[in-house]
This record gives sequence, structure tokens and C-alpha cells, in this order.
Amino acid sequence: MSEFSLIYTHFKHATTRHANTVLGIGDDCAISHIPPNNQLVSCVDTLVAGRHFVFETDPHAIAYKAVAVNLSDLASMGATPYAILVGLSLPKAMANDDFCKAFAHGLADACTPFGVELIGGDIAGSPVLTISVTALGFVPSNQAITRQGACVGDVVCVSGTVGLASLGLHRILDDLNGDGHANRPPNSLPHDLRQAMQYPVPQVALGGRLIGFANSMIDISDGLGQDLGHILTASGVGAVIDLNAIPSHALLDALPHAQKWQHQINGGDDYQLCFTMPSAKLDLFRQQNPDMPIYPIGQIVADKGLVFLHNKKEVGLLVKGWEHF
Amino acid sequence: MSEFSLIYTHFKHATTRHANTVLGIGDDCAISHIPPNNQLVSCVDTLVAGRHFVFETDPHAIAYKAVAVNLSDLASMGATPYAILVGLSLPKAMANDDFCKAFAHGLADACTPFGVELIGGDIAGSPVLTISVTALGFVPSNQAITRQGACVGDVVCVSGTVGLASLGLHRILDDLNGDGHANRPPNSLPHDLRQAMQYPVPQVALGGRLIGFANSMIDISDGLGQDLGHILTASGVGAVIDLNAIPSHALLDALPHAQKWQHQINGGDDYQLCFTMPSAKLDLFRQQNPDMPIYPIGQIVADKGLVFLHNKKEVGLLVKGWEHF
Repeated sequence: MSEFSLIYTHFKHATTRHANTVLGIGDDCAISHIPPNNQLVSCVDTLVAGRHFVFETDPHAIAYKAVAVNLSDLASMGATPYAILVGLSLPKAMANDDFCKAFAHGLADACTPFGVELIGGDIAGSPVLTISVTALGFVPSNQAITRQGACVGDVVCVSGTVGLASLGLHRILDDLNGDGHANRPPNSLPHDLRQAMQYPVPQVALGGRLIGFANSMIDISDGLGQDLGHILTASGVGAVIDLNAIPSHALLDALPHAQKWQHQINGGDDYQLCFTMPSAKLDLFRQQNPDMPIYPIGQIVADKGLVFLHNKKEVGLLVKGWEHF
Repeated sequence: MSEFSLIYTHFKHATTRHANTVLGIGDDCAISHIPPNNQLVSCVDTLVAGRHFVFETDPHAIAYKAVAVNLSDLASMGATPYAILVGLSLPKAMANDDFCKAFAHGLADACTPFGVELIGGDIAGSPVLTISVTALGFVPSNQAITRQGACVGDVVCVSGTVGLASLGLHRILDDLNGDGHANRPPNSLPHDLRQAMQYPVPQVALGGRLIGFANSMIDISDGLGQDLGHILTASGVGAVIDLNAIPSHALLDALPHAQKWQHQINGGDDYQLCFTMPSAKLDLFRQQNPDMPIYPIGQIVADKGLVFLHNKKEVGLLVKGWEHF
């Protein structure tokens, strides 16, 4: 089957048209109208089979996550997602209707809740399934929230539970440095773990509402410790984090402290937002957004570095995060 | 070496800053200002080792071409290139300074002539070197040239020689359906063949000048026959092409006709532009742009299909183009 018929059959109409698209998928390029007084926000993330997901993952879940992690990056700037372009490299055995249909549904299920359109795509043959997604979004001019800007005294917050995705991965692999194959199928996981690992929900609405409130923001992809570390480095500050304040889950609470903290601090793949804001703004945000819970977990301090407290005592935790090679 | 140190060391400063970039590579996303009265033009293309280039290709040439093919797509809409985002998946053995330095130079050498900035990147480990580039550009609102719009009577033109890249590939491989390894190193090719195959020049200036002249346009990536076919299908017309009028080269002219035509019609990878315009506009364009040669090769006709003439007699040529799987 040719690239063109695969694209036309499964991807050309996978998502609904966005009002800002002048010319969608199918020509050499897409053409888009940018809303007045907005800037373009763009990012790229690549997922590789056996590295970012186990080989046994459903095509639907692979596609969903490849999009979701990018929408999460847009959310972490306060941007409104608009569109994606997908570079898909797949083994010949997957260049068929079954795989592409499930994959296209996964793309659509990640895009549709946010009105995101697939405006560009390229399919190539490869021995290894690889998905590279570029996401485009809009943000009111000069309002984006970056990693820079955390101020001493800011409260450090997260948008929800961290550590579950890491626990899910741990449960299906015997060894985190394995060969990319699961020993137990992801579908065998308890619902909450499977959802956290395979179907993270990008915090798009919250990201947008934090404009005017948050001084700095990032999404938690490589681990709370490492990602918060990027904010600290970019802002030239440090932080003290209360481990007890990090939103948890019964499955994490059932673990010994050291294991739970490993998943929460070094686990990654949660796609919650981590952000900082002055405490007065935190109060105001909560008043104005009672439907949108956010969780203070610590404070920005002048002393550089990242300190973790448990019952007010410092705990020595090595921040590692995801090893890319 | 981590993703972050590779990106920081080799890619963060690989290209110069574009005036429209508000926030460049290094945060979760880039932020860009779109010029007033312009639309955004975007595309993605993925190159896979052993599929789109032989394994023996220099990292510099791989990176150059991954960018150039995307800038060519922008050029084919009449757009001005602005920026690229690169998703790079590479084997551990390549995650080192030597490879990344040469690769970053290749990116820069494709970007710099056009003022293009690398605004986003992601590096992942993979068994197979894969490069997915998204290119962004600007076009004056509602002025982009698409595949649709070719009119009966239009002259079909190309921007330069086609067939050389295909001949170059043929010369280093014994068999076009090989295993992705070259039998002779690409560096052993005659200069013109190597340049055509590894260092195609995206026709950016010409693409922009054709706004207001060309009714339809595409770049020749999969073969003149197949790509012109996309214009014909999108426009609901046919074309008659004079094989003798296609710009050639001494190395192609030295071949038997049938071989030469295979390279020219089905060869692909040339990244010249193919476009159509009324003959009066062709005369005007040539008057106004004496520095920019363009080559009429045939005419748009009402009868659908693609007819090739040699010395005014029809030649039966099967249009195949690149097989993606």
C-alpha cells in the first residue's frame, strides 16, 4: 500500500477542520491563519518503539500519547493547541489498514477534545516504529509562561498526581533497563495505572487559566525533580519541596517511602503541570477557579538546588530523571 | 551523554536568531511572531537511514538534506522559510560529539542561506537513524500557490535539471531495491551527481517570485511524473510534456533514451519546482526576472492523463515514482 493511499484513507479526515486552517493536509504544506494579537507556539516530541513505549502497546495508545505529550508542552506555556503535524516511520508489517485505522483513531482521540487538527503528515518505511509529532498553538502576545521567572517566595504547585505512570511502567517490566518488551501486557494493569501510563490528559485548560497568575511553568515529562530543576536553573533560584504534599494515590501510598518517592521525583511521564506563583495569586486563583484544583508542594528559595522534606526533615534524594541514551 | 547536553552543546546555537523568534530552542516550546498580513505555512518530512539515504552518507549531508527537502516544500507554496523543528532519533553509537557536530553543521548549512532558525528539537535513542523535520514559513495572506489551479492552456515549467539525483543514487547502488548500503561511497561520485543527490538547493527565491504568476506549483520529490500528476489530479486536467524540453545534463544525455527518461520522469529527489502559468505571464515573468531561468516543458490540456512526446511522437512511459513501502 502506498504512502498516499494510507494517508488519504486513514489520516486525511481523522480530525475535524479548525477554523484557522486555510489549507489542510494533502498539499505540499498546510496554510494557517494566526489569530490577531496572538503568537505562535510550537514544539516537537518523538516517541520510539521499545524506548518510549513497550512493543506490546496498542497502536491507539501509541498515537494518543504521541499527541498528548506535545499538547502538554503547549499547555505548559499557557498556549491553546491548534494543530499537529505527524512524521510516522513504520515497519512494513504495520503499513496496513488495521494498524493505521487504530493509530488514526488514537490521534483523533487525543486531538478532538481540544479541537486540534492534523494539518500535515509524512509516512515512511522503517524497521522501527517512530512517531515524531510537531504541535502548534496560539498564545496571547507576550503572555506565554516560560521556565524563567520563578521568584523567591513563589509557591511551587502541581496540577495533580505524580508517580502513577512510572509505577505502571515498573509493574509491566521486570527491569526498567529492559529490552523494550513488557513481561505483562499493559492491558493487564489496574485502570488508574494504565490510564496514567498510556492516556495522560494534557492540562490544557489549566495551563491557559494560569496566564496572569504563574511566574514560571513546565510539564512533568522527565520527572518532577528534573523538570522542576529546569525551572530552577532557568530562573536562577532553588526550591524546598514537601514530599508529603505531593498529590499521591493509594497504589503509591502502599509502597515503602523510598520507592514511592522514586516514582514521584524521578519517574516521569506524568504530564502534570509544575508551576510557581506568589501566594497571594494562589489564593486569588483558587477563588476564581474553584473547579480547578491545584496543589502547593513547596516554595522557591534563594539558595540554589532542590531540597526535599519529609515531616519537616531533609531527605537525601538523587534527582535522575529519564536517561535518553 | 544526555539529550540535554547534546542539544545544548551542538544544536542550541547551531543557527542564528530570526527576528520573528520571541523564544527559541530550550524551553518546552518556541514562541514566534507572525508578520502582519501573512499566513503560516507548515510541512513535515521524515528521512530514515537505509531508506532515504544510504547508510554510508556523511552526517553533514544527511542533516542538510533533511532540512532542504522541507524548505523545498515551503518554496513550492511560494512561502518564505522561517524556522525548523527537528525530531532526531539516533543509535547510541551516534550520540557523540563527532556525529552531532557534523550533523549540526549540516542543519546550519541548509538553514543559513535562507535565514532559517532551529527553534525546536528533540533527541531520542533508537536503533535506526531517523530525522523528522517540520518547517515553518510565511506567505502573504491568500497568495500561496497550491497544487490546485492549473488551467487548460497553462505552460508547464520546471526550475532546472531533473534526473541527476536519481542517476547519482543509481551509480552508487547495484540495485535500487537494495538493503540501504552503497556499493560505492557517495563521495566517489562526480561532483554534479553528488551535489544533486546530497545537496539539493531548495528553490526558495524562485518560489516566492512566482506568486502572482503561477497558477499551480509542486516540488519534485517523488519524480516529475508522479508530482506533476498530483497537480493534474488536484486541478482536474491533463498535460502533454515534451521530453526533449526537460532540462538535462551531459551525464544524462550520455544514456540511452529509455534510461534517461526513467531518471527524469520516475527518478525523484531533485527538488526542482514544477509549476504552470498562462503563456502571457511566462513572457512577463521572464522580462521581469532575467536572472531567474525557468524552463517550459509542456502544456496543460483538458484531456486527463499525462502524455509524453519525443520528436512530436507519443512515448509510452509508465509513471511510477518513489515506492514508500
